Amino acid sequence: MKVTLSALDTYESSFTPLVVIELAQDVKEETKEWLKNRIIAKKKDGGAQLLFKPLLNKYETETLEHHNLYLVGASQIRLLLGAEAVGLVKECNDNTMRAFTYGTRQNFKGFDVRRLLTSGIVIQVFPLHDPEALKKLEDTWYTRFTLKYQPIDSIRGYFGETIALYFGFLEYFTFALIPMAVIGLPYYLFAWEDYDKYVIFASFNLIWSTVILEVWKRGCANMTYRWGTLLMKRQFEEPRPGFHGVLGINSITGREEPVYSSFKRQLRIYLVSLPFVCLCLYFSLYVMMIYFDMEVWALSLHEDSGSEWTNILLYVPSIIYAIIIEIMNRLYRYAAEFLTSWENHRLESAYQNHLVLKVLVFNFLNCFASLFYIAFVLKDMKLLRQSLATLLITSQLLNQIVESLLPYWLQKKHGVQVKRRVQALKADIDVALYEQVILEKEMGTYMGTFDDYLELFLQFGYVSLFSCVYPLAAAFAVLNNFTEVNSDALKMCRVLKRPFSEPSASIGVWQLAFETMSVISVVTNCALIGMSPQVNAVFPESKTDLILIVVAVEHALLALKFILAFAIPDKPRHIQMKLARLEFESLEALKQQQMKLVAENLKEEPREDIKEKAA
Amino acid sequence: MKVTLSALDTYESSFTPLVVIELAQDVKEETKEWLKNRIIAKKKDGGAQLLFKPLLNKYETETLEHHNLYLVGASQIRLLLGAEAVGLVKECNDNTMRAFTYGTRQNFKGFDVRRLLTSGIVIQVFPLHDPEALKKLEDTWYTRFTLKYQPIDSIRGYFGETIALYFGFLEYFTFALIPMAVIGLPYYLFAWEDYDKYVIFASFNLIWSTVILEVWKRGCANMTYRWGTLLMKRQFEEPRPGFHGVLGINSITGREEPVYSSFKRQLRIYLVSLPFVCLCLYFSLYVMMIYFDMEVWALSLHEDSGSEWTNILLYVPSIIYAIIIEIMNRLYRYAAEFLTSWENHRLESAYQNHLVLKVLVFNFLNCFASLFYIAFVLKDMKLLRQSLATLLITSQLLNQIVESLLPYWLQKKHGVQVKRRVQALKADIDVALYEQVILEKEMGTYMGTFDDYLELFLQFGYVSLFSCVYPLAAAFAVLNNFTEVNSDALKMCRVLKRPFSEPSASIGVWQLAFETMSVISVVTNCALIGMSPQVNAVFPESKTDLILIVVAVEHALLALKFILAFAIPDKPRHIQMKLARLEFESLEALKQQQMKLVAENLKEEPREDIKEKAA
Repeated sequence: MKVTLSALDTYESSFTPLVVIELAQDVKEETKEWLKNRIIAKKKDGGAQLLFKPLLNKYETETLEHHNLYLVGASQIRLLLGAEAVGLVKECNDNTMRAFTYGTRQNFKGFDVRRLLTSGIVIQVFPLHDPEALKKLEDTWYTRFTLKYQPIDSIRGYFGETIALYFGFLEYFTFALIPMAVIGLPYYLFAWEDYDKYVIFASFNLIWSTVILEVWKRGCANMTYRWGTLLMKRQFEEPRPGFHGVLGINSITGREEPVYSSFKRQLRIYLVSLPFVCLCLYFSLYVMMIYFDMEVWALSLHEDSGSEWTNILLYVPSIIYAIIIEIMNRLYRYAAEFLTSWENHRLESAYQNHLVLKVLVFNFLNCFASLFYIAFVLKDMKLLRQSLATLLITSQLLNQIVESLLPYWLQKKHGVQVKRRVQALKADIDVALYEQVILEKEMGTYMGTFDDYLELFLQFGYVSLFSCVYPLAAAFAVLNNFTEVNSDALKMCRVLKRPFSEPSASIGVWQLAFETMSVISVVTNCALIGMSPQVNAVFPESKTDLILIVVAVEHALLALKFILAFAIPDKPRHIQMKLARLEFESLEALKQQQMKLVAENLKEEPREDIKEKAA
Repeated sequence: MKVTLSALDTYESSFTPLVVIELAQDVKEETKEWLKNRIIAKKKDGGAQLLFKPLLNKYETETLEHHNLYLVGASQIRLLLGAEAVGLVKECNDNTMRAFTYGTRQNFKGFDVRRLLTSGIVIQVFPLHDPEALKKLEDTWYTRFTLKYQPIDSIRGYFGETIALYFGFLEYFTFALIPMAVIGLPYYLFAWEDYDKYVIFASFNLIWSTVILEVWKRGCANMTYRWGTLLMKRQFEEPRPGFHGVLGINSITGREEPVYSSFKRQLRIYLVSLPFVCLCLYFSLYVMMIYFDMEVWALSLHEDSGSEWTNILLYVPSIIYAIIIEIMNRLYRYAAEFLTSWENHRLESAYQNHLVLKVLVFNFLNCFASLFYIAFVLKDMKLLRQSLATLLITSQLLNQIVESLLPYWLQKKHGVQVKRRVQALKADIDVALYEQVILEKEMGTYMGTFDDYLELFLQFGYVSLFSCVYPLAAAFAVLNNFTEVNSDALKMCRVLKRPFSEPSASIGVWQLAFETMSVISVVTNCALIGMSPQVNAVFPESKTDLILIVVAVEHALLALKFILAFAIPDKPRHIQMKLARLEFESLEALKQQQMKLVAENLKEEPREDIKEKAA
């Protein structure tokens, strides 16, 4: 017994650095000592029972900078124990890393590293990349440009389920877009301007958008079943780190924690956040009207001169507007984060819901209001097509550059600098590790899958809302997504710090968001078809009949959509069977347990009863 | 130990007869003996460990008839054990009976009483009424005509959750209708024929129908939480009794059971059931057209003569049609049951879903097709109102008579006969018990809450679909429901055999059915308002604008409805809190368990590891 625990305490035996902690420069020695003790203390004493080591030893710190970096690691034994503790030991053989990160996350909760972060003692905590595993992952993922599926299971092994699910969805969505792109191409090639052909396209679009979302649910269940997170039990939610309030007693857990009145929060939401969001929406519409003025101005300029040069000028307002939309979206994103954080939600999930709602409403209006205006107020299909094309292509190009390529280039430049500096030192240390820590310390932090899903959501909007006017949209989306996979992969592997692994069972609220978008797209497409000259020609004398028929068809389609969504099972049959088997076995086990209980009671209780009667 | 079990075996000590088993006349003595042994055998030998006794002893059977009736009972001890076995011992003190019925149900499964029923050995198995408890229940329930809430908890104690939930829903729905009825009355009293007032009424109706369904979910959660069934674990579903097939291995349970190919079932559904349902729908529409012919004939007759007598004649076609609708509904119900049973579904839930779908589609069309036809094809609001009133009132009157009053009268007559006959015998037996068994043996069996909910569903349709044309509908519905509570209670207590108690957590598929109806009612009401002359007068020159505005308002209302349904939490806050507390505690317990596991592993496994390293 003694042997075991002392073995776990030593630093030397099989130390693999996994997480880096950076402390503030002015932290006192006592604090450091306390933190170290919390990390290396045994489980039963409330510690994390992990290994802790400064990046540089005493001698080195005198010659080099960065003396407040510490490495946290674990022995192989601790990793296995962690895996067992979270119940993750199953048939997979790629989960050593995962077991650790997941385990660590729980252990860190013990001394609440988040509180240390907000108090400023700890500057940052991040897991280190594993250069060897990363190289292997990159080789199968994106470095070779061949057409093949992504190694989703390896991505999940390295980054965790949440990120793997995003890449799985991105891939699935791209493949799902291909039929749309293929059907859309001839419209461009043969310049099919007939609206009756657009009717076919729109009808196809309706069924397509419903079916792909339903099929995704099944594919997603397939993946998460394989990973063991499909039936994941939600962790009991602790208050989120930013939450503050007067200390009180939580009526659910009975623990002492900050309490904040729900009434005050409601006040903040309805008196500050809501007016602010409305103001932003108004501002967005105001900008849109300026765009239309510019559009008119450009058109009049073109008509006055009629030269080739002014023909290109026609696209300029749209491009400028697209860039402004991107900028507004990003600015609003920060404001929404600030406001939602200020609303002081107790739970991370409530915070996320309020944030998603704020951001989605604004982004939807900001991106699509001008298109709806052109389609249904101006009724100018040519302008709609031009505007849609410019918005879609500009936003995609901007995203790729701002999100991945630019940061990658900056990161590479910085990497060369650091390498040069480290080589110049020629100190007697583990150069590779030192270099890695210094480099990754400066990398950006991955802020979660929110922005990535949002991008796909808006893309889905461009493709499905007005696809019957611009069938080429799907082709552009496919093209973008093929490069997006690679640039996102590059971003994850080379530009950003390695994120902590998060388990998840599905894409969550985004499924709902995509489904809502597809309902809106049914309505929009029906309206567009109803407005087309071809359909109008069928009812030359009575416009009323036309509208009534379009509305009836739209209602039928919506009903069909809901029935379809209801009729397609969310989980594939073989998984349903396996889950039923699991449930059956656990019920059998429960029954056995209860039988035992009854048998035990039979031995004890009734005898008393009988005795009384006999007496 | 010996004392206990032998005490459980004796018949005499505290025998309360609870269930009656009627065997076929030609059952052999060996079969009877076997059955008896299965019932009284101890639990560990696979028996039910209950008491079993013929209704009459040897001597009496010679002088009296009905010698194949047997009583199954339980001692007080067994009841308590049963309650404990199903984990029902909680703060309630009314659950002795419930514990028994529930327990029995499980014990009977052991020797599959259903198989004995289908094989014809056992004619019927039914629980006996408990005259004393029944009297008490009736006194607080319906015998005294005072305006008060029903004793839902007592109903649940006597009949189980499923039936109590029906009465709870009936009561809730009646109270929810009162505001509608109150607002509707002045329309009748002051003969408000202005359509703008109908617009107000319809708008109110929209919000009302959404809100009451959402609020019901919360009330229902409240009740079932109190009863402990809210978090009820679904029992693992065994094949339903009627299911047959070639013996095979169930891949989920690994047990041998009948297997029936899903392909064959699909064939039966799509090649037989579906065409049959379509044929019935066609027939129903055909009957409807005959009704309209009759309507025209009656009108022409009235116009020719113009007398007071023919004025009444105007209502005759509607009344005849209403009666025919009722008859068709009932006939179709039997056909649907036969067909669904013939489709040979393996699970009771699949059977129920297919049956509900078949019956709902037909009943909806059968009851409302003529109204839709009058409203949107004939556009005759006067006829619509008259037709609606006749249909609603006739169907309600018919239902009350056929369902409760007529059977009650027959039952009473039969009761007097039995009493006279028993008193004439003057044999030396427990006359009260004998009389009760003979009487209840002949009572009808309660076929579940299906028909009762269906009736409410159709009523909800009459009230919400066309309420803006006939605001008095709600008042009639309220009036009907107040008597319905009493006649249904009478039916449950005096006309039908006591049903086995069934636990349930909600009204299940009916919630969905009511919600679908309320969506249809939004669409219908919007269309009716759009057709009204008043609204049309606002847009004298452009009918197109009017339709577009109505459609836009309808979409906005539907969106609002979905947002409202989404925003109102399904469970009241205090229950959410309690459930969260429960979850927290179970997670804490799990954590404790895992901690122990880790501690144990620390003691054992690592030592091996270290030893190896040391070696």
